[in-house]
Amino acid sequence: MVPPELEEGLPLEKMKDFSLEELLGMAIKAEIGARKFYESLAERIDIQELKEKIEWLAGEEKKHEELLRKIYANMFPGKEVVFPKEHIGPELQPVARKLNGVQDIIDLIRWAMKAEEIAAQFYAKLEEMVDTEEKKRLMRYLSDMEWGHYYNLKAEYELLLDWEMYGQMMHVGP
Amino acid sequence: MVPPELEEGLPLEKMKDFSLEELLGMAIKAEIGARKFYESLAERIDIQELKEKIEWLAGEEKKHEELLRKIYANMFPGKEVVFPKEHIGPELQPVARKLNGVQDIIDLIRWAMKAEEIAAQFYAKLEEMVDTEEKKRLMRYLSDMEWGHYYNLKAEYELLLDWEMYGQMMHVGP
Repeated sequence: MVPPELEEGLPLEKMKDFSLEELLGMAIKAEIGARKFYESLAERIDIQELKEKIEWLAGEEKKHEELLRKIYANMFPGKEVVFPKEHIGPELQPVARKLNGVQDIIDLIRWAMKAEEIAAQFYAKLEEMVDTEEKKRLMRYLSDMEWGHYYNLKAEYELLLDWEMYGQMMHVGP
Repeated sequence: MVPPELEEGLPLEKMKDFSLEELLGMAIKAEIGARKFYESLAERIDIQELKEKIEWLAGEEKKHEELLRKIYANMFPGKEVVFPKEHIGPELQPVARKLNGVQDIIDLIRWAMKAEEIAAQFYAKLEEMVDTEEKKRLMRYLSDMEWGHYYNLKAEYELLLDWEMYGQMMHVGP
């Protein structure tokens, strides 16, 4: 089931129907959406380990938004960011409901993984579209970072599936 | 050039020559080595963004060590951890020298990437060797986490290669 925090969005192939400017706008919008999603999710989680990881992801997405705004300003000086209505891949929305137990968390993390995976592929495609080595490098940076998030979430997801063990193994340290 | 902080170690295929107990001991030793490497590297880096990322990695490796010690204690109750002399893949050692500029940092990050990649593969192989679904899950967790680190480092590495841009793009926020 697709949770209310998620719109599935357009498939990656649709990227070619948009201008670079629109795609950068989409990327900025997606980073903002992801940050708000992680922030609101972290507030609803009381497993300390996982809460901190999700807060860390929120902070990362904030930095990506700032980086993308710099790239945008550099490529389209003086222009306001255009945010297209459409978006490529799952768009994460803030979690506004009470979560009922670990299954809800597992579902949301699975969708976040999907969103991170598509984001990584999205930036890899953008790398092909931008013109200078510098911009390509920045797109590779963003793509790699999203893969980093994907694997980080995948790791937590794996353990969450065995809830009893999660509690037992993750309460490490003092 | 292989820097002094690194011993190349045995190839992954050599894992079959060791017992599970020895391999877990190696894994614990590798996590300790990686933590000390990242801690000492962070002390020698004054780019704030990168310093924080490396410190974050050090903290992650500390948690992995604790998790592995729990797994070890569970599998070999009452036994002291056996640390084999050998190790699989690059073993990271503390950085004890002054780093000369960004090229030294780039070299060390490249080796750290290699170590994380081998660690991810090492845990994936351990997954095949352990017997319960619970233990397999923990090995998948560790493998995914190391892939997460790998991509995180790869992202930074990519930008560090263009040093001027790194300074320009990473000083984001206030």
